[in-house]
Amino acid sequence: MAHLECSVCGKKFELSYLTEGHYVCDVDEANLNFIHDYEAIAKDVRENGLNREQKNNMFRYSAFLPVDSSKLAERAPAVPVGGTPLVSAPRLAKELGIPSCNLWLKDDSKNPTGSLKDRASSLLVVRMQEDGAPVITTASTGNAGAALAGMCASTPVRQKAYIFVPKTAPAAKIAQLQIFGAEVILVDGTYDDAFALCLEASSKHGWYCRNTGYNAYTAEGKKTVSLEMCEQLAHGGQFGCVHHAQFVAPDYVAVSVGDGNIITGVYKGLRDLYKAGLIEKMPKLVGVNSDKSNWCATAWKKNLTPAEMLTMEPVEANTRADSISAGIARDGINAVQAIRDTQGCFVEVDDDSILAHIKTVSQATGVFPEPAAACAAAGITKLASKGYFEGGSTVVAVMTGTGIKDIPAAVSVCGEPFVLKRREDGQFHLEDFMQ
Amino acid sequence: MAHLECSVCGKKFELSYLTEGHYVCDVDEANLNFIHDYEAIAKDVRENGLNREQKNNMFRYSAFLPVDSSKLAERAPAVPVGGTPLVSAPRLAKELGIPSCNLWLKDDSKNPTGSLKDRASSLLVVRMQEDGAPVITTASTGNAGAALAGMCASTPVRQKAYIFVPKTAPAAKIAQLQIFGAEVILVDGTYDDAFALCLEASSKHGWYCRNTGYNAYTAEGKKTVSLEMCEQLAHGGQFGCVHHAQFVAPDYVAVSVGDGNIITGVYKGLRDLYKAGLIEKMPKLVGVNSDKSNWCATAWKKNLTPAEMLTMEPVEANTRADSISAGIARDGINAVQAIRDTQGCFVEVDDDSILAHIKTVSQATGVFPEPAAACAAAGITKLASKGYFEGGSTVVAVMTGTGIKDIPAAVSVCGEPFVLKRREDGQFHLEDFMQ
Repeated sequence: MAHLECSVCGKKFELSYLTEGHYVCDVDEANLNFIHDYEAIAKDVRENGLNREQKNNMFRYSAFLPVDSSKLAERAPAVPVGGTPLVSAPRLAKELGIPSCNLWLKDDSKNPTGSLKDRASSLLVVRMQEDGAPVITTASTGNAGAALAGMCASTPVRQKAYIFVPKTAPAAKIAQLQIFGAEVILVDGTYDDAFALCLEASSKHGWYCRNTGYNAYTAEGKKTVSLEMCEQLAHGGQFGCVHHAQFVAPDYVAVSVGDGNIITGVYKGLRDLYKAGLIEKMPKLVGVNSDKSNWCATAWKKNLTPAEMLTMEPVEANTRADSISAGIARDGINAVQAIRDTQGCFVEVDDDSILAHIKTVSQATGVFPEPAAACAAAGITKLASKGYFEGGSTVVAVMTGTGIKDIPAAVSVCGEPFVLKRREDGQFHLEDFMQ
Repeated sequence: MAHLECSVCGKKFELSYLTEGHYVCDVDEANLNFIHDYEAIAKDVRENGLNREQKNNMFRYSAFLPVDSSKLAERAPAVPVGGTPLVSAPRLAKELGIPSCNLWLKDDSKNPTGSLKDRASSLLVVRMQEDGAPVITTASTGNAGAALAGMCASTPVRQKAYIFVPKTAPAAKIAQLQIFGAEVILVDGTYDDAFALCLEASSKHGWYCRNTGYNAYTAEGKKTVSLEMCEQLAHGGQFGCVHHAQFVAPDYVAVSVGDGNIITGVYKGLRDLYKAGLIEKMPKLVGVNSDKSNWCATAWKKNLTPAEMLTMEPVEANTRADSISAGIARDGINAVQAIRDTQGCFVEVDDDSILAHIKTVSQATGVFPEPAAACAAAGITKLASKGYFEGGSTVVAVMTGTGIKDIPAAVSVCGEPFVLKRREDGQFHLEDFMQ
């Protein structure tokens, strides 16, 4: 059985602590982390393989997840979360300056609502049904809310959700919340304002709170991205057979970082595999911050302890990459510890580079990333220029969300296309375009 | 070996006819259809299973496709096309009025660029490499162009594409063309104008022409959607093992229809399986037309022969469902013949019903369809109200494209969300939202 540990003081809690309405440590209010019985997981996977009833989605790895796997058929969303492509990207490797490396994109923009956040929300809607919660709520910069709204619409019995989003979120993300039928509260303030309002609503009305980096299940759901990439690396980019699970670790994983919860999830998935003896080494994690939302990189550079990070001031957060714009990194302590534990690094990039990399990634791979996802590629370029990556190594960049939700960002780097008009003779003339 | 047959006069052609720069019949300029050696396909699939090197994408079914399967590793797009979810939708079945049926959504919005058109473009970019074509071009209402641009960006050696699109296409679709690096010509006219310009450019510059329903490969690529849905139906919605291919046909397949090429592809996939003895019956096909773009339904109601359809006048085409707005149904003859051959039917729905079904589908399944995809669900509702579907039958509705590319359509049925503002005391008050 799993238990929980505080990310700062290390205090241990039974899982039942979470079902009693608690989310964080009762000593220092720091986030909690799941600690699993890795020997039991290893035995289960070696003897039984993966979950064959759920083989085309993230519950394929139910052995690693805190859910009642016997009830998934009646509780899991009908749309498959996870099972996303691992895309070989040799042309992009050249563009980013690591031509000798095996570069792969883990394309999580292919999740049902277009972002990696579906992994957290999928696990959460299963858990809320296990725990008998009538209503779920979250604060979101857009993607996490869309993920929750989509998963609530997709469960066998539709779940009710209230979602707090800053009014400045891209229109496409807000429309997604509505089309899936969630109750939407546009907050005329920042993500941090939305976060505080969501906590207040959760405590006042007894709603189950999905807030990222606060609810320990979010990183547990997100960790499945690492389980998948390691299985896919063992099979040339494809998924293997559920009866004989095999995993291979990359050398580096690059992830953009805002509140720190995704890289925490990536780390947990890798660590679970490592502790279970299913991969032979831990990859180095590369956390890429926007220089306009750099809580984690700042804490890492200052070499702060977990206790010091707990009281660190917010940073200014106004990057164009909305999904990673967060003044307070709600899972920053775990994120910084993940980088330290894997001897990786943080790197900061500017918005111009982030936007330019949307185009670079799209044209070299056919994967169209949102700004926050392109940020990971921008980080690779910056580190590559300093000779950071060892030649011949395997590098995975996690594409956390789709660019199709943020068309203005794409247009800003593409310009306006040519318009062919009728001439005065009423006809189109091809030569007006082709000189 | 496969050969080609004219859809009107039945004249036969060797495959080499296509590589000599021809696209349509030299007698009547009607579209050509692939006729395969079904016994050979059946033998291959029974003895060797499916393509295990390509098992997570549509080339899993390379035995059914006119491609050199030994070269797919170096020619196929790196992003996996196909392998899309088949989503069980019992709540939606109730909403649409067929509560006793097993309703599934074949969610092709999960393709790399967000639409079923990726299947055609994926096959085409492989063929253009086989045939040594330097440049490819297409006319498109948006999705087909985005698909071609994305596939050209994703091949191991990047391919060059010119794309003609009506200026009125949704902004997100135009941005996709650009971000993938295609040369974009926005035509200040209709799709039919773009189509004519593309043919002219192709003939003048020797470019390979991907035009939908003109190039016979488009329907061949799209047929993989049927191969997948039948394999998934044999395994409770999941894909089976590549070593032992199994297929089960549904009773009905509902598809929205514009130029008729998708339903033609759907039909071809089913017919291939049936002729190879891999499914036991042909499902009834249900073609759903917008009443504002109803070429196919009109030809079907008038009971026109293929030769009569060849000279049929264009209809007015101004439905809000841009992807199926086509005055001339370029593959209409095949589409109408598919409905006749399967004893299915056409049904017409209005734009209000199409838009309302975006919300209905999204809230009951977590799949967010574009207007043209929601059209298939609207057609089911209309037919169900007349008692069309036999109780207990299996119905598949093909979701041909993602709603995230057409946010204004979604907003039009959702209204504006609530905005929470600070009061004069500078604070947010939850009770301003929750009375």
